[in-house]
Amino acid sequence: MKIVRVTVTPIAFRDPPLLNASGIHEPFALRSIIEVESDTGYIGLGESYGDAPALAIQQRVQPQLIGLDPFNLNGLRAIVQATVAAHAPTSLPGAELAPGSHASKAVSNANSAFEVALLDLQAHALNVPLVDLLGGAIRERIPFSAYLFFKYAEHVDSPYAPDHWGEALNEQQIVAQARHMIDSYGFKSIKLKAGALDPEHEVACIKALKKAFPGVPLRIDPNGNWSLDTAIRMAELLGDDLQYYEDPTPGLDGMADLHKRTGLALATNMVVTDFDEFRRSVAQNSVQIVLADHHYWGGLRDTQVLARMCQTFGLGVSMHSNSHLGISLMAMAHVAASVPNLDYACDTHYPWQEPDEEVIKGGKVPIVDGCVQLTRAPGLGLELDHDQLGKLHDQYLSCGIRQRDDVKQMQRYQPDWKAVKPRY
Amino acid sequence: MKIVRVTVTPIAFRDPPLLNASGIHEPFALRSIIEVESDTGYIGLGESYGDAPALAIQQRVQPQLIGLDPFNLNGLRAIVQATVAAHAPTSLPGAELAPGSHASKAVSNANSAFEVALLDLQAHALNVPLVDLLGGAIRERIPFSAYLFFKYAEHVDSPYAPDHWGEALNEQQIVAQARHMIDSYGFKSIKLKAGALDPEHEVACIKALKKAFPGVPLRIDPNGNWSLDTAIRMAELLGDDLQYYEDPTPGLDGMADLHKRTGLALATNMVVTDFDEFRRSVAQNSVQIVLADHHYWGGLRDTQVLARMCQTFGLGVSMHSNSHLGISLMAMAHVAASVPNLDYACDTHYPWQEPDEEVIKGGKVPIVDGCVQLTRAPGLGLELDHDQLGKLHDQYLSCGIRQRDDVKQMQRYQPDWKAVKPRY
Ligand SMILES: [Mg+2]
Ligand SMILES: [Mg+2]
Repeated sequence: MKIVRVTVTPIAFRDPPLLNASGIHEPFALRSIIEVESDTGYIGLGESYGDAPALAIQQRVQPQLIGLDPFNLNGLRAIVQATVAAHAPTSLPGAELAPGSHASKAVSNANSAFEVALLDLQAHALNVPLVDLLGGAIRERIPFSAYLFFKYAEHVDSPYAPDHWGEALNEQQIVAQARHMIDSYGFKSIKLKAGALDPEHEVACIKALKKAFPGVPLRIDPNGNWSLDTAIRMAELLGDDLQYYEDPTPGLDGMADLHKRTGLALATNMVVTDFDEFRRSVAQNSVQIVLADHHYWGGLRDTQVLARMCQTFGLGVSMHSNSHLGISLMAMAHVAASVPNLDYACDTHYPWQEPDEEVIKGGKVPIVDGCVQLTRAPGLGLELDHDQLGKLHDQYLSCGIRQRDDVKQMQRYQPDWKAVKPRY
Repeated sequence: MKIVRVTVTPIAFRDPPLLNASGIHEPFALRSIIEVESDTGYIGLGESYGDAPALAIQQRVQPQLIGLDPFNLNGLRAIVQATVAAHAPTSLPGAELAPGSHASKAVSNANSAFEVALLDLQAHALNVPLVDLLGGAIRERIPFSAYLFFKYAEHVDSPYAPDHWGEALNEQQIVAQARHMIDSYGFKSIKLKAGALDPEHEVACIKALKKAFPGVPLRIDPNGNWSLDTAIRMAELLGDDLQYYEDPTPGLDGMADLHKRTGLALATNMVVTDFDEFRRSVAQNSVQIVLADHHYWGGLRDTQVLARMCQTFGLGVSMHSNSHLGISLMAMAHVAASVPNLDYACDTHYPWQEPDEEVIKGGKVPIVDGCVQLTRAPGLGLELDHDQLGKLHDQYLSCGIRQRDDVKQMQRYQPDWKAVKPRY
């Protein structure tokens, strides 16, 4: 079997004005949609970062895959490595919450983008679900978590009609957001994206959530925007309210200090983002839970390796997300289904995306009782809707955004906003 | 696709009187040959330990695989785990050089035995070489090492005609053995199994090999039979003669001390034999090179995980063997082909097995220029010779050996021989 066609299509979809440590989401999020077709007529799909640096690598890799055997994942990696080496990308400032712009992740990002598509193609050729190529499903229903954000009611300069979620800045609004999300999707745990407002206020929101949803596991994620002192002070206020404490303070050293001082289980998608950081984290016990993300860990197989390493070193595994559509969701679900030690519900931004902006046939993947249900359909179980793809590609062309920059976007609201970290 | 037939056949083949730290090889080595057939008519092959404890687990797992999808490797593991848990095996004394008898390895041993067969079956169904399911071949020619042993000319009580290798106890005989093995197979590196005779004499043999084969990488493996003091003393005599120093002294602590004292690169298949020992070794820098072995690490996929962990933690990877036939050799070759950081030639006992005792059609797999050559034949590229299988199974039934015991065998030569370690 040989690859005869590879298409990389950048798309943009509406994204709400969600607040975070860097600033605020822009009105459109970027992704790339990848199609890989074999000489036997099978198609594999992938979804990855659509930011300019990531896209540039994907577009350079694209023609080199023609003629490759879709089973040759080591061959894919060699092509990606050579491509990145020849075009040494550099990171831009302010890109720390945008894994699609990290130069150091260029190889693992691009490898993952195509690896998922190749595995999907393999699975289609075999007529088995993709998870079967990952050892088979340990679970058929993959739990996800309600992912709450502080947010404004609408974007600056009103690029389109406001979303239906409304403003969420105080306790009541955050509880209402959680209620709406849980009512709609049945999530059984809650994560609050923090690092955006005053830390005491964010902790008060956790307290309000605890009161409104007794017994529901809670997480807070300030994205490293709290100093060690602030993180310790907030830990005292939080007591044992949390399932885990996600990236409260920056750096492997900071997290190690914080764990030593508080004994709290710390989770991360910021200080352990590759295998070398994993090694360094183990050496100083920086974190106790790693939030895996196949998009920047190198792919689904590498995510399995990461999970096995976590098992070996006594670390928990959960899953990180960025704004994404259904192909990414199903790729996450398939690998999550194969990981025995996935002990926590995965993160997903999926509820924040609008139902009219899915690129797969049939519209958005359902999340019921907080779970994505795997089926026995071949591959990821998805088919591309080319009309929708065209529409979102046109939106990419017209939206003007080429690289995520939450700092610059916040400066449109607050001209004196700066990229400082930790801010609190 | 469903599994409709699983056959586990214990076999015995002639094994020369090879000396080691425990004692001496018995006249017959035991293995099990595994066949797994799908409802679509494909057959996958595996080869594993034939010792009674390992065989008992395999035979209990066997009927439970009927109906399983051969892609469901996680399902296989669950069955193996439940089976081992229900029949808590115990290790026998003197079994330390017999991984087929280690109770703690029961799950990974049995999982590996069937995982290889299931992967072979998957690959046959796909009509691709097995290595394609491991990401594709990074190399088509897999280097192996000349594996020298001190040995007697023939077994006690002459169970069959002496082998053609003759006695090897002194420098001249070891050099002659190396010459014969290199002339026959083209090996480019040499390993000497040690821990059997006086350490100074064994080091003298390394010196003789160095002189006879200048520039050829050399390794010595006393199987943990030297005290820390002896290992340090021998290290001084060896200087920089070695490519790596394999298991000179027992224990993670002993190896860590030895490395601290000598700075030599230490390799092991004795102190890092599972993922937990890997973690402990990393914590104290016990070893610098891990000798992988899919038979007891859990399978081909787990061996890939181990290799990736070695890469992460800056350790080298090489490969261990026990007495084995062609199915094991090809399984080793396929996984070795997929591991980017396999920086050393693999060990193999294969040259010690007689050409008339191979169970695969066409006889022994050729080793040319020290390498096994992969082909594009599906799966492992092997077909079972049922006449040969029957012959070796009859030999298993008649040989009387049910569990490897090199100590007891040596007591037939030296009644006062004891299982002490370190002996020197
Ligand atoms: Mg996070
Ligand atoms: Mg050894």
